[in-house]
Amino acid sequence: MRFFEFVQISRKVVVVLIFCGLGACEQKEAEAPVPKMPFLESEWIDLSYAFDSTTLYWPNNPDGFQHRVDAEGVTDLGYYYSSYTILTPEHGGTHLDAPIHFFAKGETVDELPLSKLTGEAVVIDVSGKALEDRDYLIDSVAILNWEAEHGKIPVQAMVLFRTGYGKFYPDREAYFGTAKSGAEAIPELHFPGIQPETATWLAKTRKVKAVGLDTPSLDFGQSKDFAAHQALMENQIPGFENVANLDLLPPTGIYVVALPMKIKGGSGGPLRIIATIIE
Amino acid sequence: MRFFEFVQISRKVVVVLIFCGLGACEQKEAEAPVPKMPFLESEWIDLSYAFDSTTLYWPNNPDGFQHRVDAEGVTDLGYYYSSYTILTPEHGGTHLDAPIHFFAKGETVDELPLSKLTGEAVVIDVSGKALEDRDYLIDSVAILNWEAEHGKIPVQAMVLFRTGYGKFYPDREAYFGTAKSGAEAIPELHFPGIQPETATWLAKTRKVKAVGLDTPSLDFGQSKDFAAHQALMENQIPGFENVANLDLLPPTGIYVVALPMKIKGGSGGPLRIIATIIE
Ligand SMILES: [Zn+2]
Ligand SMILES: [Zn+2]
Repeated sequence: MRFFEFVQISRKVVVVLIFCGLGACEQKEAEAPVPKMPFLESEWIDLSYAFDSTTLYWPNNPDGFQHRVDAEGVTDLGYYYSSYTILTPEHGGTHLDAPIHFFAKGETVDELPLSKLTGEAVVIDVSGKALEDRDYLIDSVAILNWEAEHGKIPVQAMVLFRTGYGKFYPDREAYFGTAKSGAEAIPELHFPGIQPETATWLAKTRKVKAVGLDTPSLDFGQSKDFAAHQALMENQIPGFENVANLDLLPPTGIYVVALPMKIKGGSGGPLRIIATIIE
Repeated sequence: MRFFEFVQISRKVVVVLIFCGLGACEQKEAEAPVPKMPFLESEWIDLSYAFDSTTLYWPNNPDGFQHRVDAEGVTDLGYYYSSYTILTPEHGGTHLDAPIHFFAKGETVDELPLSKLTGEAVVIDVSGKALEDRDYLIDSVAILNWEAEHGKIPVQAMVLFRTGYGKFYPDREAYFGTAKSGAEAIPELHFPGIQPETATWLAKTRKVKAVGLDTPSLDFGQSKDFAAHQALMENQIPGFENVANLDLLPPTGIYVVALPMKIKGGSGGPLRIIATIIE
């Protein structure tokens, strides 16, 4: 005899109860007023650095972040007014890499559907090895070890790697491995990244929808061909770089909203990324 | 006799079932795996316009949106690579006004807590009157009429006004009331806005946490002192301007995530705002 069953229909939860007492059976249906609650009680954690004069860009970038004062102070009419203009390369600070950054047929930042920018996420902590070896490459063994403890990465999840390098931001030397700027800094970049074969493996076997980390690049500092970028972007998978505060998140049970500035035709852009704990 | 009851404890739903059959009573507890679902099944609606050469800025703004090509094409190493730099005034396109835009002690855009940028929202449709009169001011009567039909605005809600002018974007003349640019355009601006007293009323009696609309400004085109801006910002209430797609939302039961670019000390900035229907 089936005493009760849960039937999930769309957004409502219908609980069907069958009561049998004194020889008579009665069926009741009740709708639990649940779905609204988790949203309204959500507390969000900001995974984004602010943009300012300390914001880190790739060492050969000539511009950096510029914040020009257009107005600041009390106007002739007596009220306060401030307004500014910004200039920023798309790739710097907490930002998104759209697939077209490394793939000619890739989606531009404005073309990314919101379904790729929102959803369940996992945080894979590789800080033990990454902090020991500045040239560390995250490989599938590290991910399989994580899965042995926390379960398989859900299909269509966002994967966030915590290398531990976030604690260095915005100290250029500690974060990039060199304090130099310009072309001469490039051969001296040393920070961890994703092994290219593992990027393909994440795309093909784990069907991840986005990959982020707390370093300047999906590829490690010594990469010449940005092969992890290429592997992900050929699969229309966006990347999140210089993600902040990953140490505040548990390994699983996370919901992420990652909203880049909607730049028409953009190869990426400033990203505001937030997370909430859902279980 | 109580056959069943729903007990909500924190994020879990416990259904207590009491079965009585053949003279014996049995109690069962079942945990419904519900709370996770609403997030994971959420479909988000984008309320943001893309930034491009058609993006609308205040008519006297000399810059507009600039998207500079830094790289675009196949590199010497054989892979495709594109990258751009952007320049934009903080106030243009779909953007946020931080309280410091019109209030010296106001929060800057990076200081706004995520609790002010996420939460329940209502959409108040005033398009009937606003489309009839380009100088229409949204007043408390219009809001009280809406409340008579849809219930009182929840405390700490975001209020989004739909004037109907969104359908004109980015046609400068239809949206602003003038196709002119430069200083001479200012006296000829005609589009609806919020009556300043009503802005104060929303802050004081309805305790709204953010106000947005589908026009270029919280104040109407003919405003000289931006008094609605001042009224909201003195109360540390941010504004969302040039919000898109408000016609896709119901009047109530909406959850909004409004994430501005995190500009240190910014008076506002490019905003990515999305909504989902929660009931
Ligand atoms: Zn990038
Ligand atoms: Zn503004």
